Amino acid sequence: MKLAFLGMGLMGAPMAANLLKAGHQLTVYNRTRAKCEPLAQQGARVADSPADAAAGQDSVHLCIEDTADVEQVLFGERGVVQGLSAADGRPPVVVDHSTISALATEQFARRLREQTGALYLDAPVSGGDTGARAGTLAIMCGGPAPAFERVRPALEAMGQTIVHIGPNNGDGQRCKMINQLVVAINCLATTEAMRFGRAMGLDMDKVLAAISRGAAGSWSLSNLGPRYLAGDFAPGFRLRHLLKDLNYCAELIAQLPDASPSDFPAVHLARELVRHAESAGHGDENIHAVGRSLERSGRSNA
Amino acid sequence: MKLAFLGMGLMGAPMAANLLKAGHQLTVYNRTRAKCEPLAQQGARVADSPADAAAGQDSVHLCIEDTADVEQVLFGERGVVQGLSAADGRPPVVVDHSTISALATEQFARRLREQTGALYLDAPVSGGDTGARAGTLAIMCGGPAPAFERVRPALEAMGQTIVHIGPNNGDGQRCKMINQLVVAINCLATTEAMRFGRAMGLDMDKVLAAISRGAAGSWSLSNLGPRYLAGDFAPGFRLRHLLKDLNYCAELIAQLPDASPSDFPAVHLARELVRHAESAGHGDENIHAVGRSLERSGRSNA
Repeated sequence: MKLAFLGMGLMGAPMAANLLKAGHQLTVYNRTRAKCEPLAQQGARVADSPADAAAGQDSVHLCIEDTADVEQVLFGERGVVQGLSAADGRPPVVVDHSTISALATEQFARRLREQTGALYLDAPVSGGDTGARAGTLAIMCGGPAPAFERVRPALEAMGQTIVHIGPNNGDGQRCKMINQLVVAINCLATTEAMRFGRAMGLDMDKVLAAISRGAAGSWSLSNLGPRYLAGDFAPGFRLRHLLKDLNYCAELIAQLPDASPSDFPAVHLARELVRHAESAGHGDENIHAVGRSLERSGRSNA
Repeated sequence: MKLAFLGMGLMGAPMAANLLKAGHQLTVYNRTRAKCEPLAQQGARVADSPADAAAGQDSVHLCIEDTADVEQVLFGERGVVQGLSAADGRPPVVVDHSTISALATEQFARRLREQTGALYLDAPVSGGDTGARAGTLAIMCGGPAPAFERVRPALEAMGQTIVHIGPNNGDGQRCKMINQLVVAINCLATTEAMRFGRAMGLDMDKVLAAISRGAAGSWSLSNLGPRYLAGDFAPGFRLRHLLKDLNYCAELIAQLPDASPSDFPAVHLARELVRHAESAGHGDENIHAVGRSLERSGRSNA
């Protein structure tokens, strides 16, 4: 396939590299052009603008930080809409791998269709930079089934668990929000467990050995628990990005008929605590720093 | 070894059966004697009282529902203390597999030592009746290391993950409370995720397929998520037992220097929600019924 990939960040660059390795003909674009250099050396063409990148492709993939950036790349100056053209007479597919607002996603899909006839797929990913490099991402897709089927070979080059969640644009983002709310609440469980055990003076390595493989087991407990105990808060998945995602969750809850934040009290609590930790200066640490702002000096190392 | 097992409940009966299978010489006791019958048919002696069961054993194991019952069996009429005697001149070991108050455990251990010279081990288990039957329980032990080493062969007949958490009586219960708080909070994550996704009209089987093996993954999500969606709340692990455990957690938090419930907000929330669900009549359902009392009629089956 002829593909473009826009956004050579921590996730985008290795995802694009896996498209190249799978034999696709790839054009890349990044605002800071230097970040395209490693891909260029592997055989990708480097475009001068989103419009330039988008011209003549089967599909155009994005992986960018937030909603405003995605809008800019799609509809801004020399944006994707200005370059999109039918490949082999078929409408191209725009595939957004960013984690952004589900409601904005619906609008972007409609605007793209109206302005260019292109199909749109929201296809946020889970699995981190490790999964992006290994090609083992989970990719959760929302949008028309024909668009999903056309880009499936590209998705399979980047991920292992490829799921078409539903036919509506935003369904992929909605699934990702469910993922993120579970990640956030499980992280509260992990950090409160670590703080509670440490405050009681227990040998927490032994506690983790006893509980990690049973009914308390989770990715969070096994991966973030030991890092919390070791005082290792290097990102990874930054706390301020989790806050952004929990804000998108709140936006979706506000759209539900008859719902209020009190109907989802654990989501609400997670958002409050993550916001508090971000205000306390932990935004650029990994998400399990949410527990740090609840520690009191004097017993944090009990 | 010569062993006694008191309490032929959902957990105790299969644990005792595994002691027999491992070749130990076993005496069993249960308040309702009929529940001893299956073990008797497998070769166990049936005792008339806790005192009768405890006489002349290397170790005396208990698995009983709550703190008051354990106290009754140990110190009540014809209780364990009245039968305990040294086997081969060595003090016997009392091993409590029940999940009870860590603070009461400290008192029971002291009283037993003072009245009989017996050693005490708190050794609550995790893994459910499935794990009890399969002999794959996690067993988390608190108490003197020599007591732990002496009963290790019995523990290994019943469990797979055997951890001596620490030398203080109550350390096993404290570890179990950490397990239970993680179970409770992860269960909130699971049920809010299921309710949120269903309220948005997503195909939740596809959502679970997309998110269960990544950073949102947990025992809870994989096991309780599908049951929540299917409306299957049969116990299993009853919600009122989780409430009991969260009350023990609160008791331990109250003992921490300088701590208040607001230092552990997710534990606090879980306890409030579980208590609310128990009040609403869900106490004898499985723990994921905690999400039911937050459902509103009219969108619960969206």
